Amino acid sequence: MKRLVDYSLYLCTDRELMTSKTLEECVERAILGGVTCVQLREKQASSLEFYEEAKRVLQITKTYGVPLIINDRVDIALAIDADGVHIGQSDLPTNEVRRLLGKEKIVGVSARNVKEALDAYKAGADYLGVGAMFSTSTKTDAEVVSKEELKKIQQKVNLPIVLIGGMNARTIPEFLSFKVQGFAVVSAIVSEKNVTHAAQELKKIISSFGCR
Amino acid sequence: MKRLVDYSLYLCTDRELMTSKTLEECVERAILGGVTCVQLREKQASSLEFYEEAKRVLQITKTYGVPLIINDRVDIALAIDADGVHIGQSDLPTNEVRRLLGKEKIVGVSARNVKEALDAYKAGADYLGVGAMFSTSTKTDAEVVSKEELKKIQQKVNLPIVLIGGMNARTIPEFLSFKVQGFAVVSAIVSEKNVTHAAQELKKIISSFGCR
Repeated sequence: MKRLVDYSLYLCTDRELMTSKTLEECVERAILGGVTCVQLREKQASSLEFYEEAKRVLQITKTYGVPLIINDRVDIALAIDADGVHIGQSDLPTNEVRRLLGKEKIVGVSARNVKEALDAYKAGADYLGVGAMFSTSTKTDAEVVSKEELKKIQQKVNLPIVLIGGMNARTIPEFLSFKVQGFAVVSAIVSEKNVTHAAQELKKIISSFGCR
Repeated sequence: MKRLVDYSLYLCTDRELMTSKTLEECVERAILGGVTCVQLREKQASSLEFYEEAKRVLQITKTYGVPLIINDRVDIALAIDADGVHIGQSDLPTNEVRRLLGKEKIVGVSARNVKEALDAYKAGADYLGVGAMFSTSTKTDAEVVSKEELKKIQQKVNLPIVLIGGMNARTIPEFLSFKVQGFAVVSAIVSEKNVTHAAQELKKIISSFGCR
C-alpha cells in the first residue's frame, strides 16, 4: 500500500543557493531540523551527475525515513528506486508518469490554477505543488497564484496541497488559515547558515498552527 | 526477438542546424534519401517538448520501418515506446538503462576508447557510437578518436560500430576499409538544402563499399 506522506515541511534542493559543502550534508541537516519530505531538483547537472547525486541523497533520506522525490526525471527515479517524482507543466504528462512509475510511487504535480489542478487529479497525481505564491529568487519567471485561486483549487480538487514560491518564516503564517498540507521551501532553508536551525524555526511555525 | 538493425546511414537530429521547417519533415526527407536509423537528440527542449516531438517523429519512423532511438532520456523512450536509447558517458549507466528498457530495446553507447567500449559491452550495449572521429561544429569539445584506437576497439569488442563526428561525403571514404557497421551523420544531412539528396549521396558512397 502507498505510504502516507507528511508534506508539512517539504524541502526543495538547490545546489546553487546552498551554504552547505555538499547536497547530502544540506539534506541531512535539514532533516535533522524537521524536514518531512525532500525533492531533489537538478536543472544543470548531466544525467549521470543527477543519478549519482540522487543515489547518495537517497541513502540519507532512507536513514531518516523521509521520502525522496525526484524533480522531472522519471528515469532517474526508476533507476535509483526513489519514492516519487514531481513534475511541472512542461515535464512529461502526469498520466505517462503515473504509468511509468506504477501505483505505489508518489506523483506530485505543479499547478497554478483550477484547470491544471483538476487535470493533475484526473491523471493520477498524489499531491499538488501550488504556486508560486510569491515571485522568488529561485524562479523569477514563475506566475504568481492568488489566494482566491488557491481557495478555488482547495474547493474543487481533493488532493493534498503543498504551497511553493517565497515560503519563509514571514510568509508561511499568511497561509496557515488555508489548512494546506505543507509548505515547500528552498532558499529559506538551503541558503541559511544554520540549515538545521532554519528548518526547526519553520517547523515550529507550521506546528503551532496544527499543520502536523 | 530483438530486431536486426541496419545502422549503415544513421541520422542524428539537430534542430538548430536543420534547414527543414520541422523536425518531422527533416526526418521524413532523410529517410526518403536512405537513412536507416534515426536518433532524436534534444538538449535544449523541455521534457514535454521532447516527448511531444518524439511522439510525432515516431509516427514517421514507424511508417517507414526505421528504428527511432532517443538520446539520453530513458523515460521519454519508455513513454512513447521508442525502439531504443543512445547514451553518452555522462548519461545514466549502461546497466541501468538496459534494466529500465528491458532486453528487447536497442541500447547504444558512445565510446572513445577500448575501456569505454568494453564497459559498454559488458553492461549490455547493442552497438557503439565511436567518435568524434573529427572535431565538429555540433560538438566542438568532443575528444577525437584516432584510427589506431578505432582499430583496437574493433579487435577487442564484438559489437556493431557506428562512427560519428565530422562524417560526410569527404570523410566517410577514409573509414570504409574499417568495415564498420554504420556512419552517424548530423550536419551533412540536416544542414543541407536538399536533405533527401544529401542522404542519397551518402548512401551511394556507403553502399559502393559494401557496407549494406
